[in-house]
Amino acid sequence: MADHNALPLVILAEKFASLPGIGMKSAQRLAYHVMSMNDEEVSEFAQALLDAKRNVRSCKCCQNLTEREICPICSDDERDHSVICVVEGPKDVTAFERTREYNGVYHVLHGLLSPMDGITPDKLRFRELLARISQGGVEEVIMATNPTVEGDATAMYAANLLKPLGVKVTRLAFGLPVGGILEYADEVTLYKALENRNEL
Amino acid sequence: MADHNALPLVILAEKFASLPGIGMKSAQRLAYHVMSMNDEEVSEFAQALLDAKRNVRSCKCCQNLTEREICPICSDDERDHSVICVVEGPKDVTAFERTREYNGVYHVLHGLLSPMDGITPDKLRFRELLARISQGGVEEVIMATNPTVEGDATAMYAANLLKPLGVKVTRLAFGLPVGGILEYADEVTLYKALENRNEL
Repeated sequence: MADHNALPLVILAEKFASLPGIGMKSAQRLAYHVMSMNDEEVSEFAQALLDAKRNVRSCKCCQNLTEREICPICSDDERDHSVICVVEGPKDVTAFERTREYNGVYHVLHGLLSPMDGITPDKLRFRELLARISQGGVEEVIMATNPTVEGDATAMYAANLLKPLGVKVTRLAFGLPVGGILEYADEVTLYKALENRNEL
Repeated sequence: MADHNALPLVILAEKFASLPGIGMKSAQRLAYHVMSMNDEEVSEFAQALLDAKRNVRSCKCCQNLTEREICPICSDDERDHSVICVVEGPKDVTAFERTREYNGVYHVLHGLLSPMDGITPDKLRFRELLARISQGGVEEVIMATNPTVEGDATAMYAANLLKPLGVKVTRLAFGLPVGGILEYADEVTLYKALENRNEL
């Protein structure tokens, strides 16, 4: 925003622009929108930012974000604590929960291995995963990281780390997305779908 | 977000989702991003929201958003105060300032006439515009509203309101956008470009 704009608006727009996926033009529009909100709505927004940062922490067990010491999933006795689904971030937990089919527990790594970007195993929550497994009772670890270079590397690292402990380590199946059209599938997906074909 | 998510995060995501152009998925991603910001960054963001709302008001003269009583453009003696460019919102002022070609002043209506949505002339800053003009010294009012139904209606309303006061009321030219391709221009734009053709 040019210098004829009020400074607090310029600062607010810069804050919005620092968020992922919001460019300077959208940020400016959002700043103007805030001006059209009433005082109460703006204070509630500011409070929501502070509350989220202050009151949300990592679950001591699965490392997912929660308000409690132990998150509702980890403290749920009806879930199968012998199966741990390892994911990159909290949004992946939401994705699995949405399927309503998974009844095990999770472990959130808060990232994927990427040595080029300085993300080495000690930057992720592998230590906490090892601690959980060494307490016993875990039979299977499902590596549910994305099918990308980083996701694959993270899954391979976890497999090498955990197999010596006598835990079964599995990986999500790759194949055609349900409802997808074969013609539009990329080569690697199609190859994976062929390789992992099932007998009817 | 499902109920396994921490409540403060759900609330924060809802706040983001209440902003224009941000859907529930993006809002959730933004809420998670806030968790990865450090405490200082989050307080600065919250403070920026409050500061913008508290310290920014409408300029007493042109109604544009500013921190001062009278905005920098209205208090600039080097600008031509006999020409007023009437725009829908503050972002339009920014757009004109970016051209570096306009040296008059502005008047921000904070909306366009839309009786169907309950936006009648008394909801816009026409009263303040009339007050400025009745003080004398204004020779031309340029109606720089969008070439839409609402923008046209607002321009026509202003023309009927201001012409009796002996002020020249003009409207932005319509035509082909510079760098545009004739083949892709819509019929109305092309018709306007033809109608308003200039002798070379």
